[in-house]
Amino acid sequence: MTTTHRVFNFSAGPAVLPLAVLEEIQRDMLALPAAGMSILEISHRSPAFESILAQAEADIRTLGPIPSNYKVLFLQGGASMQFSMVPMNLLTPGATADYIDSGSWAEKAIKEAKKVGTVTVAATTKGENYARVPRQAELTLTPGAAYVHMTSNNTIEGTEYKELPAVGDVPLVNDTSSDMFSRPLDVAKHALIYSGAQKNMGPAGVTVVIVREDMLARSQKSMPAMLNYAVHAEHGSMYNTPPVFAVYALGLVMRWLIAQGGLAAIATVNERKAAKLYAEIDRTGFYRGTAHADCRSLMNVTFRLAAEALEKTFITESTAAGLDGLKGHRSVGGMRASIYNAFPEHGVDALVAFMREFERTHG
Amino acid sequence: MTTTHRVFNFSAGPAVLPLAVLEEIQRDMLALPAAGMSILEISHRSPAFESILAQAEADIRTLGPIPSNYKVLFLQGGASMQFSMVPMNLLTPGATADYIDSGSWAEKAIKEAKKVGTVTVAATTKGENYARVPRQAELTLTPGAAYVHMTSNNTIEGTEYKELPAVGDVPLVNDTSSDMFSRPLDVAKHALIYSGAQKNMGPAGVTVVIVREDMLARSQKSMPAMLNYAVHAEHGSMYNTPPVFAVYALGLVMRWLIAQGGLAAIATVNERKAAKLYAEIDRTGFYRGTAHADCRSLMNVTFRLAAEALEKTFITESTAAGLDGLKGHRSVGGMRASIYNAFPEHGVDALVAFMREFERTHG
Repeated sequence: MTTTHRVFNFSAGPAVLPLAVLEEIQRDMLALPAAGMSILEISHRSPAFESILAQAEADIRTLGPIPSNYKVLFLQGGASMQFSMVPMNLLTPGATADYIDSGSWAEKAIKEAKKVGTVTVAATTKGENYARVPRQAELTLTPGAAYVHMTSNNTIEGTEYKELPAVGDVPLVNDTSSDMFSRPLDVAKHALIYSGAQKNMGPAGVTVVIVREDMLARSQKSMPAMLNYAVHAEHGSMYNTPPVFAVYALGLVMRWLIAQGGLAAIATVNERKAAKLYAEIDRTGFYRGTAHADCRSLMNVTFRLAAEALEKTFITESTAAGLDGLKGHRSVGGMRASIYNAFPEHGVDALVAFMREFERTHG
Repeated sequence: MTTTHRVFNFSAGPAVLPLAVLEEIQRDMLALPAAGMSILEISHRSPAFESILAQAEADIRTLGPIPSNYKVLFLQGGASMQFSMVPMNLLTPGATADYIDSGSWAEKAIKEAKKVGTVTVAATTKGENYARVPRQAELTLTPGAAYVHMTSNNTIEGTEYKELPAVGDVPLVNDTSSDMFSRPLDVAKHALIYSGAQKNMGPAGVTVVIVREDMLARSQKSMPAMLNYAVHAEHGSMYNTPPVFAVYALGLVMRWLIAQGGLAAIATVNERKAAKLYAEIDRTGFYRGTAHADCRSLMNVTFRLAAEALEKTFITESTAAGLDGLKGHRSVGGMRASIYNAFPEHGVDALVAFMREFERTHG
């Protein structure tokens, strides 16, 4: 195997994965040990895959930790599919769902939920370009709502909640796609958590849903089986052929995360990585962070320069320097450094050094 | 890289893939040439992935060939998701959809369609354990139906259509999951073709939908975006993050299929492989084919022995001999040899030799 040049990948997702995981996938690509065939060929009904699926779930349960009254489901379609599945399953007839509009993805979730039933926007920071998440005091919650929907980390705008909002007895649904397992989370405060895998959990193609069992009673038999949480729970994510490879790769990432010491340990690293970048952003005023300081994301660090032409130069020169994917989302512009769990700290150091030098030459 | 022992994989899906494809995936796992990162890490908005997606579509169009007034979509959720998406998009209010019930999967498609609208079963062979597909003369078609739904190959029962049913001007929808691109197909006779990839096209995790453009007008804006064919068509399968790796792997399989000479060439090989197995089944009466001779599947060869105990022995001994996955679907029992495009002919020869020897020692 030739040594292969790898760049620093700051993409917002799909995103960098641990090299050790990629190497294991590579090693076993032609045949899984003891199976005699590739993970890409193996029957989802085989004992080998059943074991892979069970181990992935067990490792997720260990990491969370996930209380025993929650189901862990492996689904397809990403968070976008969950934008519809959540209301189709949980928004009971006649009830209202409260949505906190904290960013572009929350807005998309709201748009899809409105197709299904009655939605109330409990708060929005859209008028401030989503530069912060709504505060507790700003929330207008509906008594007896079917659920409250939030987005714990806003990938595009680079903000995150530092504390879960208090919603009383109303079930809390959380789109954790971009900060899942990047820090400890209190699963028991949620009724449902969903996460597209392609940021912190694995490659694109699998979505993890963690759902409290009492919620499953809301799923009506009349709905499409593939959209029904209760059906997937009943069949242990094997109602139909699951995305075998993506589940396998996600499982390897979970093993890696356990080996790193779990969520508290990775959070320490993530805080340190983010702190280095925000310190550089704040150092002189040459760079300008776009998120309010009290809700800056540890995963997606967004910043601007004084002029768009200079930002363009920054992207061109950083890409040439092997720092890839720093262009901000097309809807907001500027720069975004996504530094998920698997992003190496020396890559952050390399970006900080580049920023320092860029300021020196263009400041 | 150590040489790895690979068994003969007769699984019905996920199923065997070309070794050359697995080797290319293995070679480039740490970093795609010129991208500097793994296919598992690459942004779906990157030029490298856009090129992979475009090439996969172009190769599918070449292979079909697919007429220019058809869209090729890469979706998630397998054929099971299509069981709902087809009626949600195409079953216009007040209209009826005709379904031909030719096997267990057709039956599941009917069950899901009935949740959406009015369904007529145009014909069924369930009373004959689906040992054949319904004949043209048996079809009761609804004039002006929204569409007719068929299943070209019945994976569990081992039957296939040798000719498409004639449905006049009514749009024909075909679940080709288990015989897609195993033989030439007349795309222009279809309004929509769908196929889970994990038999003839690639690994599990991506579903190919080929839809005639005029059908897209039926998709209502009020439906969930992720279930809306028109939305996926408008965004070139990039409405949300597609299953990047599965699309990539499928693209490599398409390249391989073109290198084999395309559909006519692979059909010749598939006919030869199936003929060898059916000849052995028919040779003495020790084995009994379960499908009617005039609709025997080239992909899934189903057969029984005189007693279940003997079948159990057959499975045990064949597995030990490196012939894996020959157990029939749990709903029908017996044996099933799935011999998709990528299944090597010398693996068929090995099974024939095993069957001959098994008959000699147990006959």
